[in-house]
Amino acid sequence: VHILILGAAGMLGRKLAGRLQRDRTLGQDEISRLTLQDVVATAPCDDAGFAIESIACDLSAPDAPATLIAKRPQIIFHLAAVPSGDAEADFEKGYRVNVDATRQLFDAIRAAGDGYKPRIVFTSSIAVYGAPFHETIDDEFILTPLISYGAQKGICELLLADYSRRGFLDGIGIRLPMICVRPGRPNGAASAFFSSIIREPLNGEEALLPVPDDVRQWQATPRSAIDLMVHAASIDLQPLGWRRSLNMPGLSVSVGEQMEALKSIAGASVAARVRRAVNPSVTQLVRGWAPAFRTDRANALGFKTTETSVADIIRIHIEDELRGNFVR
Amino acid sequence: VHILILGAAGMLGRKLAGRLQRDRTLGQDEISRLTLQDVVATAPCDDAGFAIESIACDLSAPDAPATLIAKRPQIIFHLAAVPSGDAEADFEKGYRVNVDATRQLFDAIRAAGDGYKPRIVFTSSIAVYGAPFHETIDDEFILTPLISYGAQKGICELLLADYSRRGFLDGIGIRLPMICVRPGRPNGAASAFFSSIIREPLNGEEALLPVPDDVRQWQATPRSAIDLMVHAASIDLQPLGWRRSLNMPGLSVSVGEQMEALKSIAGASVAARVRRAVNPSVTQLVRGWAPAFRTDRANALGFKTTETSVADIIRIHIEDELRGNFVR
Repeated sequence: VHILILGAAGMLGRKLAGRLQRDRTLGQDEISRLTLQDVVATAPCDDAGFAIESIACDLSAPDAPATLIAKRPQIIFHLAAVPSGDAEADFEKGYRVNVDATRQLFDAIRAAGDGYKPRIVFTSSIAVYGAPFHETIDDEFILTPLISYGAQKGICELLLADYSRRGFLDGIGIRLPMICVRPGRPNGAASAFFSSIIREPLNGEEALLPVPDDVRQWQATPRSAIDLMVHAASIDLQPLGWRRSLNMPGLSVSVGEQMEALKSIAGASVAARVRRAVNPSVTQLVRGWAPAFRTDRANALGFKTTETSVADIIRIHIEDELRGNFVR
Repeated sequence: VHILILGAAGMLGRKLAGRLQRDRTLGQDEISRLTLQDVVATAPCDDAGFAIESIACDLSAPDAPATLIAKRPQIIFHLAAVPSGDAEADFEKGYRVNVDATRQLFDAIRAAGDGYKPRIVFTSSIAVYGAPFHETIDDEFILTPLISYGAQKGICELLLADYSRRGFLDGIGIRLPMICVRPGRPNGAASAFFSSIIREPLNGEEALLPVPDDVRQWQATPRSAIDLMVHAASIDLQPLGWRRSLNMPGLSVSVGEQMEALKSIAGASVAARVRRAVNPSVTQLVRGWAPAFRTDRANALGFKTTETSVADIIRIHIEDELRGNFVR
């Protein structure tokens, strides 16, 4: 099978590319070719045992999609996006990349005209939802995003379903939980502290906690996010009907639970590196996000996360990102 | 107030233009100017007491929106659309007119740069919903359209909300019920028979009823549809928050109830002009549409239909379209 990853240089894109190169298979199929797209070139490993091509291009450029599908990849992981903060800061860029590039990709597939009908795994987001909420959001709750990024993901979900229904492609949209612990530096998102309060202390650095202990977030580890994507690429989509996007499993985790788990795993001195300083405006913003989901549809289709507790989330970070070590 | 109607030559557009010319006011405001856009020129009446301009242009042409908003209409009724059957038959035309033209309009408003922030009354549709349903659909039910027209309306709802939230315009989307009795000839839509079985018999003609008596539709008269639009243009939208689209009141009417009311209003000989011939594929299609809605949000904002019974729906048709007469 020939696989294309759009947005392959991002945090999840790199992990997905690495996983596919290690596995050499996807579901039942042997991987024959991997194409990696991003605005910058990505460096594939050189002993994968199959052809890997890196294409550096802007997905929103007029002929980019046609070039990318020229060799007819059967599976397309579409992770390319302007992140939420940037899409809010630059309205036009957000719509150009997060909506127009996606539609252009779908239209290039539609125009292929040779029976080409790839599986598209589209990474949507729980940012498609906006308050006011019930306590738990199920798969039938209306999408009323409160940021442009969420509106753009919602529009792509509608396109994905309609282009699938019309027979142009075989799409599935997975609304990923917030990724925690996100490796790397804080990315400026308002939600960054959920990862910072684990990542920085384990790294010997201070972190700021701007919300009270009862504030919750719907979380999954990077490892689980990759599992969910790979599963979405492998399963039969018939049972979905034309409702092609669905909430993904995760854990509803409070900041207090995170702190307690950090203390029990890494010790009091590590946990003491978190400084509590409640910021009312951040608190208000974060309380507007959905804290928990029902994921019956995803569960029925076999979607699963690895972690079953907040302690697992921290342990997986230590294993996958810190080679088992942290600064005591 | 300067009002612009997009799609002014359509069935509802003409009725709305007529109503505004008769009223000479909208809410508390005197109408100072009325601009009528459609792909064909519309013929305004000549004694409205205010300036009326008809502009014939394709809303999806690149500079059409900028031209149409050049005189800064404060209220824009956006009724322009490729209807559902055509949008299904011509995929590209549907997206060009029903999505791209709308976004182009919103972007032209955003680009005005002089504090211009018109009220947009966007006519959405219950076609944004798709089976499987609960018995009743409320304002929090997810939009999962099963026709491209519905996907296009759903995308515009997301744009309307996001552009409103960003402060570019002041939008409200009203999901109109199916219009019954629709005047004129059957328009080829699969739902056309709901109007035909009333309209044709009153006109001395036969009509075909392709579904069993228990099949239901969510209906409003053309008169009520205009009332709902005018109300949407007049009210304070603050209470909506950023959830700018809402289900509109209507009546859940079964075909059997329609037939009974026709018989009691017009007599058995008129009702006998309806020929029952159940078509299983039409029946299956129509059973996939939402038969009833909860409209709590619209009710709280004062949206109301005139009719309170299926008999009213027929009487209003006889009054408004047949000058009180029908063929006995």
